[in-house]
Amino acid sequence: MSEIVVSLPDGSELSVAEDATVEDVAYEIGPGLGRDTVAGVVDGELVDKADPVHDGAEVVIVTDQSDEYLRVLRHSAAHVFAQALQRLYPEAKLAIGPPTDEGFYYDVTNVDLDADDLAEIEDEMEAIIDEDLPIERELRDREAAFSTYADNPYKRDILETEAKDEDPVSFYVQGDFEDLCQGPHVDSTGEIGAVTLLNISSAYWRGDEDNDTLTRVYGTAFESESDLESYLERREEAKERDHRKLGQELDLFSIPDITGPGLPLYHPNGKRILDELSEYARSLNLDAGYDPVETPHLFRTELWKESGHYDNYVDDMFLLDVNDEEYGLKPMNCPGHATIFDQKSWSYRDLPVRYFEDGKVYRKEQRGELSGLSRVWSFTIDDGHLFCRPEQIEAEVNQVMDHIYEVLETFDLDAHVALATRPEKSVGGDEIWEQAESQLRSVLENQNIDYDLEPGDGAFYGPKIDFAFEDALGRKWDGPTVQLDFNMPERFELSYTGEDNAEHRPVMIHRALYGSYERFFMVLIEHFDGKFPLWLAPEQVRILPISDDQLGYAHRVKNELGDFRVEVEDRSWTLGRKIREAQEDRVPYMIIVGDDEQEAGTISVRDRKERERGDVDVETFRAHLEDEYAEKRVEPDFIGE
Amino acid sequence: MSEIVVSLPDGSELSVAEDATVEDVAYEIGPGLGRDTVAGVVDGELVDKADPVHDGAEVVIVTDQSDEYLRVLRHSAAHVFAQALQRLYPEAKLAIGPPTDEGFYYDVTNVDLDADDLAEIEDEMEAIIDEDLPIERELRDREAAFSTYADNPYKRDILETEAKDEDPVSFYVQGDFEDLCQGPHVDSTGEIGAVTLLNISSAYWRGDEDNDTLTRVYGTAFESESDLESYLERREEAKERDHRKLGQELDLFSIPDITGPGLPLYHPNGKRILDELSEYARSLNLDAGYDPVETPHLFRTELWKESGHYDNYVDDMFLLDVNDEEYGLKPMNCPGHATIFDQKSWSYRDLPVRYFEDGKVYRKEQRGELSGLSRVWSFTIDDGHLFCRPEQIEAEVNQVMDHIYEVLETFDLDAHVALATRPEKSVGGDEIWEQAESQLRSVLENQNIDYDLEPGDGAFYGPKIDFAFEDALGRKWDGPTVQLDFNMPERFELSYTGEDNAEHRPVMIHRALYGSYERFFMVLIEHFDGKFPLWLAPEQVRILPISDDQLGYAHRVKNELGDFRVEVEDRSWTLGRKIREAQEDRVPYMIIVGDDEQEAGTISVRDRKERERGDVDVETFRAHLEDEYAEKRVEPDFIGE
Repeated sequence: MSEIVVSLPDGSELSVAEDATVEDVAYEIGPGLGRDTVAGVVDGELVDKADPVHDGAEVVIVTDQSDEYLRVLRHSAAHVFAQALQRLYPEAKLAIGPPTDEGFYYDVTNVDLDADDLAEIEDEMEAIIDEDLPIERELRDREAAFSTYADNPYKRDILETEAKDEDPVSFYVQGDFEDLCQGPHVDSTGEIGAVTLLNISSAYWRGDEDNDTLTRVYGTAFESESDLESYLERREEAKERDHRKLGQELDLFSIPDITGPGLPLYHPNGKRILDELSEYARSLNLDAGYDPVETPHLFRTELWKESGHYDNYVDDMFLLDVNDEEYGLKPMNCPGHATIFDQKSWSYRDLPVRYFEDGKVYRKEQRGELSGLSRVWSFTIDDGHLFCRPEQIEAEVNQVMDHIYEVLETFDLDAHVALATRPEKSVGGDEIWEQAESQLRSVLENQNIDYDLEPGDGAFYGPKIDFAFEDALGRKWDGPTVQLDFNMPERFELSYTGEDNAEHRPVMIHRALYGSYERFFMVLIEHFDGKFPLWLAPEQVRILPISDDQLGYAHRVKNELGDFRVEVEDRSWTLGRKIREAQEDRVPYMIIVGDDEQEAGTISVRDRKERERGDVDVETFRAHLEDEYAEKRVEPDFIGE
Repeated sequence: MSEIVVSLPDGSELSVAEDATVEDVAYEIGPGLGRDTVAGVVDGELVDKADPVHDGAEVVIVTDQSDEYLRVLRHSAAHVFAQALQRLYPEAKLAIGPPTDEGFYYDVTNVDLDADDLAEIEDEMEAIIDEDLPIERELRDREAAFSTYADNPYKRDILETEAKDEDPVSFYVQGDFEDLCQGPHVDSTGEIGAVTLLNISSAYWRGDEDNDTLTRVYGTAFESESDLESYLERREEAKERDHRKLGQELDLFSIPDITGPGLPLYHPNGKRILDELSEYARSLNLDAGYDPVETPHLFRTELWKESGHYDNYVDDMFLLDVNDEEYGLKPMNCPGHATIFDQKSWSYRDLPVRYFEDGKVYRKEQRGELSGLSRVWSFTIDDGHLFCRPEQIEAEVNQVMDHIYEVLETFDLDAHVALATRPEKSVGGDEIWEQAESQLRSVLENQNIDYDLEPGDGAFYGPKIDFAFEDALGRKWDGPTVQLDFNMPERFELSYTGEDNAEHRPVMIHRALYGSYERFFMVLIEHFDGKFPLWLAPEQVRILPISDDQLGYAHRVKNELGDFRVEVEDRSWTLGRKIREAQEDRVPYMIIVGDDEQEAGTISVRDRKERERGDVDVETFRAHLEDEYAEKRVEPDFIGE
């Protein structure tokens, strides 16, 4: 029997039998690993340990120590939910039940569930886990598969679409339950250490509003009860910090129905924060030699055809007809910037040319997927595009990386880094892609940055380094990006005159320090729990006169604080209520002025961490505010330890 | 015979016979005026002196001393052109030939003209003027009118549209020439003191691309040769200052074909200027208690229906279909701002609430009317909307007026002021309109501001005070505006709780200090001839080393100048060429450094007015730049008189 070669995460290669499975590969590496194998990742895809590998495959073995293990476990928990549901509601029809980043869900129909029913289902799930049923894969021929689902249009739909080439078809069976499924799963229901159902919502079949409405039940599972408990605590805190809740409480933004879905309006408090963010990015950009540019939101479709967006992105674009010609709202800023570059002739001495723009783009997400600021139709990218000579790539990418790390530090955020490579829908030749991917890889390696490989997640025009912020609750959010692009310059026929007097093609680098302002704003709201650093806070200081007698003095103090965003609380409340209100509004500093302060010409300062300091000179406080603002300190620190 | 009453510009009223003409009114005022009458303005419309007036009409008598006289004269000059053309090219067909602000044009067809032919036509025009032919009105019945134009589809089209209710139809005749025309005209061709043809272009019949392409000949006329000569001089200078020419030479912006018509791209130099303008408006707004907000460009049509834009403005809107629902790009920012106001409940103590946004709007102008930055599809308004109690209107409008006058002074611009009243297409009841118009009038009168009345030129939701900038060449351009609006708050059901605890409707004021950034930028480019004040100049200082030996020193000087926009000229040119280039680029200051300066650690400063000063300390110059920048001085003044 002939052999095939697979590659392993450490870069080594391994010869295995032609019909080897993931499990066989694991045993080939070592019998201990073989025994511990739960599943595999082949070419980036999570698969059953019994699935075959192929020549040239990149194989990762998944054990209960792997990051992917929780995903496998949760997928099995979704099956346990479905089994419990069918025991209690035999008429229920199952649609689809995948694992997610935080747990799992199952979309079901023909059953009338509300939140009160979840406890009973959960009890049944515990029972199934106690039964410790083996979970086994079964392969059936297509006819048998269709007859299994004679009454279930959703499963039949899957058989006709995603599984249309499968023969035999993969099922997973545990006791009295079976499900059309690619797996992988844990070995038995008893492996699931802790499970809970979280909530119920509705969803459209395949996310399309024209399809049936289904009931979606969310749950999650962990290896242990203590893991589940700490997750639920974090989740409770996350709910309190939800940017949609805080967005309303702090009067930051709204997305009213009449203006349209996914099209946020920024209120003064939100816009003040966005403006500070924009100003910070602007100062980083100007210092780094970027020039500001501005482009409209509407362009001829011609442009999108030239850039390749039309072929690769048209489903996400807002298109319109103007005098019988097609136009599109911009889904990206790059073609506009490439066009500006193209208006001039350039010498090698002029490069790199670096443009930046806070560019609002429009992408038509499914209505059902829109949520607060995290998924919207219109969002603003702190977009930068630079045009350089090939030998300048590394220095430029390094500079961008430095900026990104500076931003992370400023906001006290961690980040995970990933190298995303060529996706299925893309433009440009293999050689160009390989060159670009290897250059990004070498920057990451030279800077000793830990990164994950995300095969197929690149932009359609080139590979990219993506940063995911990790917030105060350990959640990850898409953030900054650096993208290398040899294709757009080719398509727009961009050029510069080299030292050799011949015309050359520049390389284009796309980058963003925040990603989108919307997403970043959401991350900040939740990361800081609305307690923004002084430099971002829409209201930086609130002056609380003890009684109306000090109103005049309060206004004089406000004037002395100059350009800071200061309000005087002029409602006739008790001081206690005034403090509570300021605390709820997360104002970094309160100034309390009573008769004593007025007489002495001083102030009492209280911060939102409930620390106080009396007998303060206004000028001393103002000087501190200036430093705290200029240094973008995360926490108010006038009243130190 | 019964009498009717007309009102005169001084506010007085006059009783005249029921069938009185404009000329009769003039004779009624005085026989001298009667004799001098050329035409009239009735209810804002320029008419023949033989046209009747009606009861309640506002009548202005036009003599050769009136502003309108030049318009009448130029209309007659257009007829003289057409007469000359028909003498030389009897086959030519006439379409339409109106007077314009700067002269006249005539659209013709069936004749092959180029610029070389204009001199011959001009000679023939001179001959016609010398012939001093009387210009007389003739009324014909509709059948005769149609048979006159059996071969002319354009004139027939006019008879069927604009003139469809005319019977008899008005013609004007001079010697061998006749034209379907409402007039008015001067008494004879000899009254035209000086005439010239300027250029040829093409135009669509009625400006619609689907119609015939016509040849448009532009000309102008004056009362005297010397008036014409000084006009031609100004025109020559205006050509040199044309913002489209300077926009390219100074690399400020472009409107490339591929991105779409009327959709400008701002290059770094242009965007630097826009950013300074935006920052200036922002600082005025913040100081005046305005809060920043941000709204998207796309909204549900629902919103435009609620605001009234859909009914009154739909022809100018870019509409698109999203998931079978209609959306529109915003043509104005007001409905977005009203929606933000509507998200909160307000007390009378909170008012006025003032929002501002640099809001990019989209209006679908005819392709043929687009021109540079003066008429575009996408433009950004420095838009402000404030919501106040009725008793706050006057103080708020006064504050806005103060800002507008501050802006005018900063840019060394004069302005003409007009009060524009209710247009034909509008929303809201008569009483509300009258109230709003009279409040604006009283602000103008209390501030002793000279203004013109522009009946019917208001916004569809309310009357407005419009400012037209007058630039260095005496040309006028639409600029700032203050608009009073009782209708939008009604339509959006905006409210606040009054001191009486009941709900009240706020008044909305729309205002812009610049108008649109695009138009204002155009005005500034031409007003300053590209010689922007230091604070606006994209490149503020250029350092010219006498030879490459001083390059290092030049860069050290640049560093000492901190955040100013400074470039080092590093091309190996002669000093003379470097100076010429900097002069052409209109850089306010040049710093020249040679061996002497390097040794002494000083600089030589030269400004773009060609004044020089040697042996300057860098710190002294930097301190001056800071003052000149902060005070927004119009001219570089480090080197004084």
